[in-house]
Amino acid sequence: MPDDKTNSWEVRAAAHTLYGFTDLPTIAERGTVVLTGGHGPYVRDVHGREYLDANSGLWNMVAGFDHPGLTACAQEQYARFPGYHAFFGRMSDRTVELSEKLVEVSPFEQGRVFYTNSGSEANDTLVKMLWFLNAAEGQPERRKILTRVNGYHGVTVVSASMTGKPYNSVFGLPLPGFLHLSCPHYWRNGAEGETEAAFTARMAAELEAVIAREGAETIAAFVAEPVMGAGGVIVPSEGYFQAVAPILKKHGIPLVSDEVICGFGRTGARWGCEQYGFMPDAIISSKNLTAGFFPMGAVILGPELADRLQRASEAIEEFPHGFTASGHPVGCAIALKAIEVILDGADGEAPLIENVRRLTPGFEAGMAKLAEHPNIGEWRGKGLMGALEAVADKASKTPFPGTLSVSERIANTCTDHGLICRPLGQSVVLCPPFIMTDAQMAEMFEKLGAALTKVFDEVA
Amino acid sequence: MPDDKTNSWEVRAAAHTLYGFTDLPTIAERGTVVLTGGHGPYVRDVHGREYLDANSGLWNMVAGFDHPGLTACAQEQYARFPGYHAFFGRMSDRTVELSEKLVEVSPFEQGRVFYTNSGSEANDTLVKMLWFLNAAEGQPERRKILTRVNGYHGVTVVSASMTGKPYNSVFGLPLPGFLHLSCPHYWRNGAEGETEAAFTARMAAELEAVIAREGAETIAAFVAEPVMGAGGVIVPSEGYFQAVAPILKKHGIPLVSDEVICGFGRTGARWGCEQYGFMPDAIISSKNLTAGFFPMGAVILGPELADRLQRASEAIEEFPHGFTASGHPVGCAIALKAIEVILDGADGEAPLIENVRRLTPGFEAGMAKLAEHPNIGEWRGKGLMGALEAVADKASKTPFPGTLSVSERIANTCTDHGLICRPLGQSVVLCPPFIMTDAQMAEMFEKLGAALTKVFDEVA
Repeated sequence: MPDDKTNSWEVRAAAHTLYGFTDLPTIAERGTVVLTGGHGPYVRDVHGREYLDANSGLWNMVAGFDHPGLTACAQEQYARFPGYHAFFGRMSDRTVELSEKLVEVSPFEQGRVFYTNSGSEANDTLVKMLWFLNAAEGQPERRKILTRVNGYHGVTVVSASMTGKPYNSVFGLPLPGFLHLSCPHYWRNGAEGETEAAFTARMAAELEAVIAREGAETIAAFVAEPVMGAGGVIVPSEGYFQAVAPILKKHGIPLVSDEVICGFGRTGARWGCEQYGFMPDAIISSKNLTAGFFPMGAVILGPELADRLQRASEAIEEFPHGFTASGHPVGCAIALKAIEVILDGADGEAPLIENVRRLTPGFEAGMAKLAEHPNIGEWRGKGLMGALEAVADKASKTPFPGTLSVSERIANTCTDHGLICRPLGQSVVLCPPFIMTDAQMAEMFEKLGAALTKVFDEVA
Repeated sequence: MPDDKTNSWEVRAAAHTLYGFTDLPTIAERGTVVLTGGHGPYVRDVHGREYLDANSGLWNMVAGFDHPGLTACAQEQYARFPGYHAFFGRMSDRTVELSEKLVEVSPFEQGRVFYTNSGSEANDTLVKMLWFLNAAEGQPERRKILTRVNGYHGVTVVSASMTGKPYNSVFGLPLPGFLHLSCPHYWRNGAEGETEAAFTARMAAELEAVIAREGAETIAAFVAEPVMGAGGVIVPSEGYFQAVAPILKKHGIPLVSDEVICGFGRTGARWGCEQYGFMPDAIISSKNLTAGFFPMGAVILGPELADRLQRASEAIEEFPHGFTASGHPVGCAIALKAIEVILDGADGEAPLIENVRRLTPGFEAGMAKLAEHPNIGEWRGKGLMGALEAVADKASKTPFPGTLSVSERIANTCTDHGLICRPLGQSVVLCPPFIMTDAQMAEMFEKLGAALTKVFDEVA
């Protein structure tokens, strides 16, 4: 650790923290980065160092770290009504307003909303909803959940079971009945000589085969991120959702779009499902929903599932589920403001989603330029989310040995130069805030480019 | 519904809400109570009606609905640093400070903290921690979780599996491996002629028998609320924790205290485990942790579990778990302030926990007086949490038929007269805010007493 004074922030942090999703050798070597505030897309640490956060916090601080409209909204709601629940037929006015707004901006004509405190809780809630309504409709065995390898859906035991990442084996997960289909990543998983269309057809055929093997009557849902986020910004192969959606429909299996990352503008469209032209049966939302200013998730059920859940609940006079802070008035007020800021434009400013669209060509050009490096195998992305995948050999797509920790070294080199980006497997992920300026984007690419050159010179 | 104008708040609420933990016939008959704000322990609805909230929101708004110190703290932190995560070795300064404070006020000499957004996520996280470290230590089969009938631990699939309430059967829960021991409620579950000491011994013998039957090497933890909250304010039988703790210790099974409701003063002690004189291996916290001003939960591991988890994480260089808003700077700032307000006294005010202790004798006297009614079988409670259990016959403890919905009728009658209390099975629960005055307590008992008389006159 660089600073070993007994009372330093780094020592204090290490003394009492159970670090999550943190490379512990990096902590041992470099210490915790303790942050005190930010402005625009920059954050500042206790030593006064500034970092351009090209990770938007964790995909979510899309309006930056000092958005005046969101700050004022939070402050006003704290003065007005600083907390309540949504149990026992009581809820705040802001909760009612947000549910109306969410259904209005959803792809659905009608729908109903259930609030949680996170995307993890939203996915966990979705599973409970489906188990409940299937049992109520006489199909208690319809419980299996289909997701994909590299799909990320959260960290509760059930949402971690949905997540298709190998690290969950350390918990003895996934639970039985959570099945992971192949990841539709054509560049990495396409077979020798296979066209993208053939690859997509193979993904669809796998889905058909799994349904046939397991029995459609045992499958409660297929849940998918339009673009996989924490899986490494995996854009689906061409025509993927058009191929799988009709198969699911034919078998009566709901298609759920996990929009925790894609929702509210990240890909340049309002929803990822709109970007990729498919209509889900339900949407899972979180992160951008409050622009990171408050912990909140939501399950938005489209009309059919909403009606079925409502009927099943009425039959037993209750839906026995809910979190203490579900529909918290401050979170709902912030979400209403965040949706306005992102989709409609607030306080005389243009909608942030317009800036996403404006920045996208330059973002793509910057990524494509970095991908010319011989040790970048692929760049991929959509809107303002992208990844660069490091390879030891470009032609054969051979990765570097894991022991070299190439992506961590790139990210740590960036941190040394005031840029935060995220190492993810062999990739480096960028998902800048929607408020970014052209100059900030140029700074991001310049710093990342320098770090790539330095690290590849060391390892390649 | 009383107000059927198409654009009323009640109609708008019903159109887009999936009501959780809500009696749907009550909604159909009375409509949603839509709230706009509050002052002190009162909340106000869209029609200007006020209610004394003897439910503290949901046990958690213990400093009331317009606490100036908490409001100012939230407003200041929103201006300072309105959001961040705690992944990748970065976190806010407030997060570091809160972890220090939580270990300081915990019963532990040393410990480590993991943040979540709710008590549900905290219990779910605890289970993942135990599954992870047991597997890392070569005991992957040590996964079963012991809880008690009527224990409430949350609503994720796993925390609902820990919860010992019959309604979870509609989800096909509990999952296998979640075992519910008997509820240590002497008044209801004591056998004819059985002394309280004999009852406690029977509870302990059951634990021994379950451990023998299942095998200690398959059991990851015993998790218990010191006083069961949502189970109906069930105070443990005399000597209960002194009887079970040594059995668990002998078999190497961690004892986890779920302090979501009891923690931070509800029973008059800082922690429920301190109130009942036992030392847990870990604490689950939420609710009062932020006085309801922010969604937050925490797992506080005592020294042994903290060290074991840390070692297991270092062995694979990471603990692969965490929520986006874990350790949110605003939540941490609010929690620091809430702990100060409750335990230490802030801004020249006495600590709220002192008011809990001051009010307790009057609370107990008021409950005892209401319990003289022939249709109240028992009052029970500790500190500022209590329940009155309705019975059709006091001597035989015979409950009213469920179809009479006696507790719902009492609660709805209270609502008509401006008092919020909570129907729970055959009980009515009171858990007033810690800021209550003597006059407000008198108002609470007067309104509840009138409602009991009215409803029992109708049904008894």
